[in-house]
Amino acid sequence: MSISMYQSSVPVFIRMLNNLVGVLEKAAAHAEAKKIDPAVLINFRLYPDMFAFAKQIQVAVDAAKNGTARLAGVEPPEVENNEKTFPELIERVKKTIAYVETFKPEQIDGSEEREIVLKRGETSNTYLGQAFLLNRVIPNFYFHITTAYDILRHNGVELGKKDYIGR
Amino acid sequence: MSISMYQSSVPVFIRMLNNLVGVLEKAAAHAEAKKIDPAVLINFRLYPDMFAFAKQIQVAVDAAKNGTARLAGVEPPEVENNEKTFPELIERVKKTIAYVETFKPEQIDGSEEREIVLKRGETSNTYLGQAFLLNRVIPNFYFHITTAYDILRHNGVELGKKDYIGR
Repeated sequence: MSISMYQSSVPVFIRMLNNLVGVLEKAAAHAEAKKIDPAVLINFRLYPDMFAFAKQIQVAVDAAKNGTARLAGVEPPEVENNEKTFPELIERVKKTIAYVETFKPEQIDGSEEREIVLKRGETSNTYLGQAFLLNRVIPNFYFHITTAYDILRHNGVELGKKDYIGR
Repeated sequence: MSISMYQSSVPVFIRMLNNLVGVLEKAAAHAEAKKIDPAVLINFRLYPDMFAFAKQIQVAVDAAKNGTARLAGVEPPEVENNEKTFPELIERVKKTIAYVETFKPEQIDGSEEREIVLKRGETSNTYLGQAFLLNRVIPNFYFHITTAYDILRHNGVELGKKDYIGR
């Protein structure tokens, strides 16, 4: 087994997103046990101009969905950001896992120097596949998963590092 | 250029740790400008049983230092966790960058199936290099850098995503 663009992306996303499902299930159970309105956690921000918890999840899964698709040279499907409950967020993560799982190694491998153009309004940035994955997608993915975890820990949800990183 | 164990580790650590130096410099400047005791930020925890800010930095840099050394089959040097100020934390990050920079691609490349044994007290875990890097070192590294960033943002330090992820 040698490291490849596929190995560095798809199985990593699937592994961490499955861990995230477990984190979301623990958060939902915590809210129910402590009689906390789940919306308080779902709308919580660590600072007024940071993303709320739900948005952290939506951006994390989109990093995996869009990153994988773009490495494969495929246009990622647009998904509406309308989740307002833990079951809806869990469903969103599971749908993302199912989407990412559709990609085969041969679609992603060899994408190191594939040109990936990201349009933002009038401007566009062009990346090569390897820099796109290692310097954009992966740090962004982990940023939002970790911040979601931090929001829950800050609010007293009993989670440990193993819930984030897996076994 | 094809993706390799070296490309997936050393340049990623160096890039993110250089970004972290910038984040720490902004935090130090913020404390000075707002007349906040820097120790308040350095000892801040998002929850009583989470690591304080200084420890987040120490664990993040050790993930890079120890991860790189172990992939290369080298015993990582022990470093004392005694930083109590922003200049000391910045120095610790810079020393880690200098250490990680000493590794050459040929020391890390081909480590996909190298056995890495982590001892914790009486028990030990054995990983293969690729799973060690992708499933342990990298998610751990990003976890602690992100949580450090989240602590500063939660305390009003003016940082943006670009400070974390770079340009």
